[in-house]
Amino acid sequence: MIKFRDEIKDLKAYRPGKPIEDVKKEYGLKEVIKLASNENPMGTSEKVKEKLIKSIDNLAIYPDGNTTILKDELAKKLDLKPEQILPSSGSDEMVDMISKTFINKGDEVIMADITFPRYISTAIMMGGIPKIVPLKNWTYDLNGMINAITKNTKLIWICNPNNPTGTMFSEKELLNFLEKVPENIIVVYDEAYREYVTRDDYPKDNLKLLKKYSNLIIMRTFSKMYGLAALRVGYTMASEEIIENINKIRGPFNVNSLAQIAAVEALKDNEFVESCYRINKEGKEYLYNEFDKLNLEYAPSETNHIFVNVNIDSEEIFIELQKRGLIIRPITGTWIRVTIGTEEQNKKFITLLKEVLSN
Amino acid sequence: MIKFRDEIKDLKAYRPGKPIEDVKKEYGLKEVIKLASNENPMGTSEKVKEKLIKSIDNLAIYPDGNTTILKDELAKKLDLKPEQILPSSGSDEMVDMISKTFINKGDEVIMADITFPRYISTAIMMGGIPKIVPLKNWTYDLNGMINAITKNTKLIWICNPNNPTGTMFSEKELLNFLEKVPENIIVVYDEAYREYVTRDDYPKDNLKLLKKYSNLIIMRTFSKMYGLAALRVGYTMASEEIIENINKIRGPFNVNSLAQIAAVEALKDNEFVESCYRINKEGKEYLYNEFDKLNLEYAPSETNHIFVNVNIDSEEIFIELQKRGLIIRPITGTWIRVTIGTEEQNKKFITLLKEVLSN
Repeated sequence: MIKFRDEIKDLKAYRPGKPIEDVKKEYGLKEVIKLASNENPMGTSEKVKEKLIKSIDNLAIYPDGNTTILKDELAKKLDLKPEQILPSSGSDEMVDMISKTFINKGDEVIMADITFPRYISTAIMMGGIPKIVPLKNWTYDLNGMINAITKNTKLIWICNPNNPTGTMFSEKELLNFLEKVPENIIVVYDEAYREYVTRDDYPKDNLKLLKKYSNLIIMRTFSKMYGLAALRVGYTMASEEIIENINKIRGPFNVNSLAQIAAVEALKDNEFVESCYRINKEGKEYLYNEFDKLNLEYAPSETNHIFVNVNIDSEEIFIELQKRGLIIRPITGTWIRVTIGTEEQNKKFITLLKEVLSN
Repeated sequence: MIKFRDEIKDLKAYRPGKPIEDVKKEYGLKEVIKLASNENPMGTSEKVKEKLIKSIDNLAIYPDGNTTILKDELAKKLDLKPEQILPSSGSDEMVDMISKTFINKGDEVIMADITFPRYISTAIMMGGIPKIVPLKNWTYDLNGMINAITKNTKLIWICNPNNPTGTMFSEKELLNFLEKVPENIIVVYDEAYREYVTRDDYPKDNLKLLKKYSNLIIMRTFSKMYGLAALRVGYTMASEEIIENINKIRGPFNVNSLAQIAAVEALKDNEFVESCYRINKEGKEYLYNEFDKLNLEYAPSETNHIFVNVNIDSEEIFIELQKRGLIIRPITGTWIRVTIGTEEQNKKFITLLKEVLSN
């Protein structure tokens, strides 16, 4: 008798992995290492934690609905106007808000496969038609995306570096792409992993592009390098007109108070960010080296995770590693995604991987 | 050149009140009392705060996307299945998710005026047509809502007790209403303020209605009595089918980790809830008494706020009180909403109110 919207009929509810405590119980394990969700193995800046503890007496008060301080701090740091910035409850919420701001029934939305899964689900929710452009060599096929544009195209999602493959495209490729996209089509450029990039040809200084391309939206997050995934906070930059319109969709208190406080503090602790960058780079080199010795193919990563072909079914290796107390993410076929952990975690992963592969 | 969705054209972005710090600066005030947002003047349970401080080392880890522990604790306490419960990032997010689950372009959505403003904005975002049924004597006109039903009606929002008027309708009236609503129309029953109700004829034991009415959705929050507004957490109960469908809309990590931990702990601290209930009741009686002496009309409140007619323009009294360091909410005409504060805050409010009214 009850009728749900047709658009959501074929969507699947998110099925999260087992909580670590359940994995421990099921396999009788004392410790479980999770290298499945691209979380920062170094945790969170100590300065952030101290500040949060000092803020614990104000929890009955609603958050600042305008995220004033966070926007001001970001504006200063990034040389933008506060009106060009919109914090959100992680990128998840922003992807949803962007879809709701732009996508009408029948609009085509171009995205890659494999990429962040919320791009497709939020497009479908709004009645949009996803147009999937497969990756080429696990990297964005930007020319393929340009070729997929039709008169019905409304929005294009690009993620650089990409999740889950870890690959990137260069500044030159980005500029070339933006030049070719008609200016009535929105380009959302998601750089959740930008802080981990080591290559010089990455579009590091890309905020200047907002002046040139009024159809460009840039998304960043505090969930990865800044180690604030638990609190849910990210931010998005675009023209004042676009930000004002996304703002109409936004719930009045979408970013919780502790997330706002933590983000402001996290921006100040460069030392933490630098040490996480270094440890991630060392971990990546160690894992590359071990994968090479095992003759395992992998995609070159500019993130905190590596997409690697383990040559056996990814669901199988997921189970085998989980039994041994280590959780990775099976992705497709024989390819898995492993988060780069601490030195100790990476060594443990390689030891267990060898054990499973030699069985 | 850029085209936003037509549905959002006439929506206004939320304009939050001035941050307290700005009010202090503007008027040279040392202290500002905020009785504007129905926040708990007693703050948050000490036990919750202690637990949060102990959890501060896990902020780099994503929240449990399934809110397993919170759902299990609620299920036990409420005698429901966990599959009938869905936590959200405050009621704000849930109102949005419900609208996105059910409302198609052209669907009629019945709601009161005045009531919680997110009902109307989220309906409009989805292309729904709001059908407004004015309050009668500042109370829900449930018969008027029944009469507003047409073949295009999709969903009805009812808020009991109501915000911002504080008024309630009885269990008998609710049952009578539910009997008359066709079973293909969703009824969302928002009881954000239920913990403050003093009247015996309030539908206290209403979860049993979920068995009888498969079209019923019940919403609750931790933002009010539980003093967790800063963290954003509420929960919604309905049939497993409805919850499963709202779940398709939900972002994977919509409730942040500290909110989950705080909510679980808050459920255990009955002593805190009981003392807040008592202090609110005493504050209400004090304010009633003072309003009576001042000959001010007010709506009978079953919440933590009072809707009162100050006989001068509500925007004017808002400014005059703000100058003096006290913030209330102007609502309509000469009516304001004031949150019931601590004994000291209530006295301060009455003193300043008298001062302004006698000028």
